[in-house]
Amino acid sequence: MKVIDGKTVAESIKGQLKLKVESLIEKDIHPHLVAILVGDDGASQTYVAAKEKACSEVGIISTIYKFESDVTEDELLKTIGFLNNDPDVHGMIVQLPLPAHISVDKVMATIVPEKDVDGFHAVNVGRMALGLPSYLPATPNGVLELLKFYNISTEGKHCVVLGRSNIVGMPVSLMMGQKKYPGNATVTLCHSKTPNIKEHTLQADILIVAIGQPEYVKADMVKEGSVVIDVGIHRIPDASKKSGFRLVGDVDFQAVAEKCSFITPVPGGVGPMTIVSLLMNTVNAASGEGY
Amino acid sequence: MKVIDGKTVAESIKGQLKLKVESLIEKDIHPHLVAILVGDDGASQTYVAAKEKACSEVGIISTIYKFESDVTEDELLKTIGFLNNDPDVHGMIVQLPLPAHISVDKVMATIVPEKDVDGFHAVNVGRMALGLPSYLPATPNGVLELLKFYNISTEGKHCVVLGRSNIVGMPVSLMMGQKKYPGNATVTLCHSKTPNIKEHTLQADILIVAIGQPEYVKADMVKEGSVVIDVGIHRIPDASKKSGFRLVGDVDFQAVAEKCSFITPVPGGVGPMTIVSLLMNTVNAASGEGY
Repeated sequence: MKVIDGKTVAESIKGQLKLKVESLIEKDIHPHLVAILVGDDGASQTYVAAKEKACSEVGIISTIYKFESDVTEDELLKTIGFLNNDPDVHGMIVQLPLPAHISVDKVMATIVPEKDVDGFHAVNVGRMALGLPSYLPATPNGVLELLKFYNISTEGKHCVVLGRSNIVGMPVSLMMGQKKYPGNATVTLCHSKTPNIKEHTLQADILIVAIGQPEYVKADMVKEGSVVIDVGIHRIPDASKKSGFRLVGDVDFQAVAEKCSFITPVPGGVGPMTIVSLLMNTVNAASGEGY
Repeated sequence: MKVIDGKTVAESIKGQLKLKVESLIEKDIHPHLVAILVGDDGASQTYVAAKEKACSEVGIISTIYKFESDVTEDELLKTIGFLNNDPDVHGMIVQLPLPAHISVDKVMATIVPEKDVDGFHAVNVGRMALGLPSYLPATPNGVLELLKFYNISTEGKHCVVLGRSNIVGMPVSLMMGQKKYPGNATVTLCHSKTPNIKEHTLQADILIVAIGQPEYVKADMVKEGSVVIDVGIHRIPDASKKSGFRLVGDVDFQAVAEKCSFITPVPGGVGPMTIVSLLMNTVNAASGEGY
């Protein structure tokens, strides 16, 4: 059994991106990502700060546009319009959640697809589904980069995905079935209406779990020798920790790990890859390789 | 075992559409579909003629723009641009195949998504994948309409799709897994790289076959009581027929039918539904219900 080390993979990709950014700067293109942050949600601030740090590590300029939580939708859309037309801005992300008076759909649809480095825009999702060049959604792409780094074979394998969210389960299930590597897997997508999830997970050569329930996948649900990718992250109370909590994923790691050929830990598995995917999209946007 | 009668379902939907068109005309909106036909491919002419006939049956105005096969890409794109801006045109389709000197991708991307009643545009595919209102691709939507007409339960069922094409397999696999009816099925997508297709098909409560091989699915590949939807259509030589051929699907109908609870025949199953989906999208485009 091998524990997939997301931090190492992320660092390796960041190293490559740094070289790419340097060569872009030589051509007078300085990759620039703008993050839009509304309100003072603590988690959002933490995420944006982490993205800013990662940008600076690879040489991407990052700018944060910070708005009070009472900003009008109109003002936000105008700002996005301005950034759409700024040739020095290559990528743009809007940190979610947004206050209730602002329509997430409207905001997302206003970002031009060419700068939608989160890959959330319908055009990018559609291009991805059709197998056309596009900005891949961060977490699914992070999962595929992990499989690639460890040379894990996917062609003809049975990949079972738990969870059908628009940001993880749905896109990763599409990507794993496409005619390329990683991909070419037979893919089963399970969700809240699947009555017999265990029957499906037991058939998985590759199990991707994004179901949002702490330690949902137990040892008796996975096949011997399978690859398990855990996208979940949860804080659960733990009196033995100084902080009073510990982080767990959607998979009962201790019990499941010994049955696997490869498994991602939480933290340190898929997590570090998400921001790296965003950096990859931003560099592609700047270099014109995005589309 | 019940044979799904696509003709009856198509006629029933056309009857509803006719009423909808009449009420739109009362509001001075006359649904109008434009078909663009390039060259003199016999099959394309037959398809376009069938679409024209179906339009006239429900009261949709249909116009055919016919071009010689040496039309330039530029002229075609200009025509599409003109039609994009014509408020009296609600839907537009380009009959494929196009001559080799014309880029299908460019042509498709030029049609504004609001008039892309074939649902092929990346925006429509993306909106469909995200569960947003969109023009659904014709054949997958036809499949879902058949399931709906016969009140076939899909929630929690295992739906196995054979074939991952952008126009049938991929979109129908997404639609069958979405949170609605028909949908909420656990979906497995199999394709040319699936080594053991029979293992999967034997688990299917609902089997949707779009693999493009005549009579590929045999009786020993389907589960007793399953629902089998056959999207294929092939001409195979048959000396006993006056025409010298007969039409078959991707499923060995005679042998498979007796194991099924429901099965679509070929012809007369999915086929008649495809044009009806196009009419549905056109009426939705005219009424503003498309988006």
